[in-house]
Amino acid sequence: MSLIVQKFGGSSVANAERLENVARLVTDTYREGNSVVVVVSAQGDTTDDLIAKAHEINDNPSNREMDMLLSTGEQISIALLAMAIEKLGFPVISLTGWQVGMKTDSNCGRARIKECSAERIRSELDKKKIVIVAGFQGINKYDDITTLGRGGSDTTAVALAAVLHADCCQIYTDVEGVYTSDPRRVPNAHKLEEITYDEMLELASLGAQVLHNRSVEMAKKYNVKMEVLSSFVKVPGTIVKEVCKLEKMEIRGVAKDLNVARIALMGVADEPGMAFRVFSALARKNIDVDIIIQSQGRDGTNDISFSVTKESLQPALDLMEEIKDVVKAKEIIYDENVAKISIVGAGMTSKPGVAAKMFEALYEKSINIEMITTSEIKVSVLIRAEDADRALVAVHDKFIGA
Amino acid sequence: MSLIVQKFGGSSVANAERLENVARLVTDTYREGNSVVVVVSAQGDTTDDLIAKAHEINDNPSNREMDMLLSTGEQISIALLAMAIEKLGFPVISLTGWQVGMKTDSNCGRARIKECSAERIRSELDKKKIVIVAGFQGINKYDDITTLGRGGSDTTAVALAAVLHADCCQIYTDVEGVYTSDPRRVPNAHKLEEITYDEMLELASLGAQVLHNRSVEMAKKYNVKMEVLSSFVKVPGTIVKEVCKLEKMEIRGVAKDLNVARIALMGVADEPGMAFRVFSALARKNIDVDIIIQSQGRDGTNDISFSVTKESLQPALDLMEEIKDVVKAKEIIYDENVAKISIVGAGMTSKPGVAAKMFEALYEKSINIEMITTSEIKVSVLIRAEDADRALVAVHDKFIGA
Repeated sequence: MSLIVQKFGGSSVANAERLENVARLVTDTYREGNSVVVVVSAQGDTTDDLIAKAHEINDNPSNREMDMLLSTGEQISIALLAMAIEKLGFPVISLTGWQVGMKTDSNCGRARIKECSAERIRSELDKKKIVIVAGFQGINKYDDITTLGRGGSDTTAVALAAVLHADCCQIYTDVEGVYTSDPRRVPNAHKLEEITYDEMLELASLGAQVLHNRSVEMAKKYNVKMEVLSSFVKVPGTIVKEVCKLEKMEIRGVAKDLNVARIALMGVADEPGMAFRVFSALARKNIDVDIIIQSQGRDGTNDISFSVTKESLQPALDLMEEIKDVVKAKEIIYDENVAKISIVGAGMTSKPGVAAKMFEALYEKSINIEMITTSEIKVSVLIRAEDADRALVAVHDKFIGA
Repeated sequence: MSLIVQKFGGSSVANAERLENVARLVTDTYREGNSVVVVVSAQGDTTDDLIAKAHEINDNPSNREMDMLLSTGEQISIALLAMAIEKLGFPVISLTGWQVGMKTDSNCGRARIKECSAERIRSELDKKKIVIVAGFQGINKYDDITTLGRGGSDTTAVALAAVLHADCCQIYTDVEGVYTSDPRRVPNAHKLEEITYDEMLELASLGAQVLHNRSVEMAKKYNVKMEVLSSFVKVPGTIVKEVCKLEKMEIRGVAKDLNVARIALMGVADEPGMAFRVFSALARKNIDVDIIIQSQGRDGTNDISFSVTKESLQPALDLMEEIKDVVKAKEIIYDENVAKISIVGAGMTSKPGVAAKMFEALYEKSINIEMITTSEIKVSVLIRAEDADRALVAVHDKFIGA
């Protein structure tokens, strides 16, 4: 008998029919002899509807009152799911964030979990009940309701799995698992049986929107085994854990990210502190920089290039104009029409030539590389946006095969 | 400086515009130097919508999960009202039932308040905040959410006024106060300045749907001064309290109730225990009986008549058929086409002839009386339904004047 935490997102509980589907999945797991804790998000568009309602009244409400409002979305979901499970004749109880003792800091709207007693959950599990918990919400030390922000329900599920020492934290989504690449664009993409936390983190940050990084980071910290699987198709999903069994694959996935823009400062003075000035200015404005390259320019100056998200392009350009004279740059150029293609895999650390093999795949398709960056388990390149899909397929098939 | 509890019902907070109106009323009171605690119900049709949502999934959900679901309605209202008050620039905080320590028994769906610490409210009032509290809800000793059932938000407001020793508990409604009769039917009906708890209780039970009896009973018990007033028209309302100043009026109000039916057992044996058998049988089936009359029939038998609500007519008739032989009744007759007209007023106890004056008013209009019942502060008569409106005006104008 295992203890399993199951998390269902907003689209999985969007209406009566889908709630009934979730109720069947949950009770199937219970009937197999497992203890089951279920975490649910607000139904479909509920959160957006509540935000619209608030803005009708006040376009700048306090975060505290916003959280008071938004937390009702999950409370509605847990009650309805409990009713659906009652109808199937199983013992069930729904619990809100405060009822399970989900303590957070006071950053309403993006609170971090501090601790969770889960006493009530244990006592209900002892009574053989299926326990439904509201995701996304907690309370601070004053008993005010807080919400956890993006990826909040995944994080609730992992936190409960950690506290309860659950055997697995299943995250149900609308895809069947984690794929080697986007199946809509790469015909040969296939589902992974397993992936490590670190690989999942790199993939998630590269645009594979299956799991939110926060939840994976917490799973890694507390060694919670996760499984990503479909709430609509009953097949095994992808297991996320610390160490995966050896596979012949060098890389675990290929990702594409179009939300990227390139900025270059040309002809920067070749003096100490120039790069420091550029990137500390960006950091002060909270502009995240991804790839950074500094190269020797002509006439003894340097060219400093970096990539940012498209939303950050204009603020970053404004900032560069301000410091242009300080760093003695001759010219600022930028390019929005770029894409980032990345390969991720713990396997590449031990195998030289992985990056070269990626470059070869692009060369074979005559795709030009503008920037390159590498980490322990990742290689990313910046290319023209129009080449992105061809590049994705070429790199995927080179490593993972047809 | 006073401490004032203000309660606003669902129609007063139904949309953004009405919430803004309530926010202005509340902040006006605050600006006059008062401490203000506001109790709100769920917006307009929210509760009905949530019930429909539940029944789509399970037509017989547990009361516990129903309360988990329904309590979100008030939580949405308090957050939105707090945002409306924030927009006006006043310090405000919203609190749920559990956050204010509203402890109830475990009868989900119709819980009774057991105690309320109100610590959090006091601490927020000390910080000069306007405190918005979710009506209708509490928690039981297991920390499960409960709802108070009909009239719940009024009861929340009176309970808080009692615990906080508030100077007044204002119940805002869509009428301007308590009237001597229904103003839509009695042209000369006028608003009362004051009314006693007992008179209010009699009037409420007679169909003047302004305040729910539960809240008036609690106000009487803890001597909470209430005021019924309009959330749309800014004029003084009606004060409800223990003793009212003497007025020349003998009666405080005239009420009409159409939800009544008459049953008569004809020719019941003139033996001890016959009435006992009839009414204990009705009590065992939880059928409330209002007026009871026993009269000498022909041939040494008795006729026993009583009135019930229209919903209870059929079950009461079925029961009478069952016991007809036991009480040796010859015939059962019934009549749905009746109305009850009542006069209420503490003044009538000390004045003989009040009942007679009522009968005179009806006689002058040739309205026949079928049954009569009296209490300390009330006289009710059963008449033909088609005479009800004429009777209402006649009795009202006889006592209260044109």
